[in-house]
Amino acid sequence: MDFQFPAALQELMEHLKGLPGIGKRSAERMALAIFQWDEARLAAWSENLRTLHEKVGVCTQCGNLADHTGNGLCYICDSPVRDHSILCVVEEAPQIRVIESSGEFKGLYHVLGGRIAPLEGKFAENLNILSLEKRLQETPVREIILALSPDVEGQATAVYLSNRLQPYQVRITRPARGLPAGSDLTYADAATIAIAMNARVAMNETGDSTNE
Amino acid sequence: MDFQFPAALQELMEHLKGLPGIGKRSAERMALAIFQWDEARLAAWSENLRTLHEKVGVCTQCGNLADHTGNGLCYICDSPVRDHSILCVVEEAPQIRVIESSGEFKGLYHVLGGRIAPLEGKFAENLNILSLEKRLQETPVREIILALSPDVEGQATAVYLSNRLQPYQVRITRPARGLPAGSDLTYADAATIAIAMNARVAMNETGDSTNE
Repeated sequence: MDFQFPAALQELMEHLKGLPGIGKRSAERMALAIFQWDEARLAAWSENLRTLHEKVGVCTQCGNLADHTGNGLCYICDSPVRDHSILCVVEEAPQIRVIESSGEFKGLYHVLGGRIAPLEGKFAENLNILSLEKRLQETPVREIILALSPDVEGQATAVYLSNRLQPYQVRITRPARGLPAGSDLTYADAATIAIAMNARVAMNETGDSTNE
Repeated sequence: MDFQFPAALQELMEHLKGLPGIGKRSAERMALAIFQWDEARLAAWSENLRTLHEKVGVCTQCGNLADHTGNGLCYICDSPVRDHSILCVVEEAPQIRVIESSGEFKGLYHVLGGRIAPLEGKFAENLNILSLEKRLQETPVREIILALSPDVEGQATAVYLSNRLQPYQVRITRPARGLPAGSDLTYADAATIAIAMNARVAMNETGDSTNE
């Protein structure tokens, strides 16, 4: 006979179990901790969840997450100090965060909303490609970086986009591939080694990453 | 420059970071997952948090977690098949769950609400001892099991209670101590080994756990 939690606490555990990486035990531990919170803290979180979709939306230009309070643009599209003539195309909005953390990219983004994956029923027409073409038509863009995942579907999508965007006469690039920074060569996989050896860079010249 | 999440998403991450075992990265991952949930699921969780303290309270008899919808008793105190003449005293309500999972105890519980810890400002008068004495006066109880943690403060509290409850002429016991079931003797700590060797049980007699 298992211990029965009160119904509302049981329901709270079910919600928590829906979160990524949270199992039965963690959900129980969290629910008991939440039950100890004071009324104000519970009310604040409750209100936050209730109004989440009202307050947070997607940027009308690039598809990044954006406050609904502003002019519809995310803080990156809205920034005057960013280079509006370089677009970095990513699959999903959370990937923008990863690229921003490098501090290396100063342009704008465009969120595709996935990649071409016929087995999952995702085709080119399900991606935000028309809106990307519209941006190319409306504003002067000199480079598009296709920052898609270096796997089969990501690369197929990159090749498709690269062909489709040809008419716009814009420079199309992709991030370099090779050994990850700070990694141990001992544990590198064969495919990565092959790419890294092939695209090797001379050490007594200025290394340029446009080698393919 | 770090990536800026929209304000409401940032707030959601702060709430999640307040949960036990959740750091910055997990909170971000969870918040992005929650953002993908549909309106109905967010509304249900919001309502659940808002009404949690209304719907869940503590049992008026033993202090266990209880639905506020019933007669004020938890499902254990309310059960006619449990043995109402044995009380198991625990420090906190979640410990009831652990004892119930063994399936070995069929009596009722009493939640102390902590243990005597003068350094933390917890004294006997801060614990639910008066309500325990009231139960002893009002209903026939034949045994009290002091299931307190086997550490210094838990045992000090057990000794205090054992003395204080002497006038009630009730059998007072505590769970046996020794090697945990399924454990490897190699990794047992010295204190546990000492207790286990001292309280050793003959294998050719019927082992009785009342050995001290």
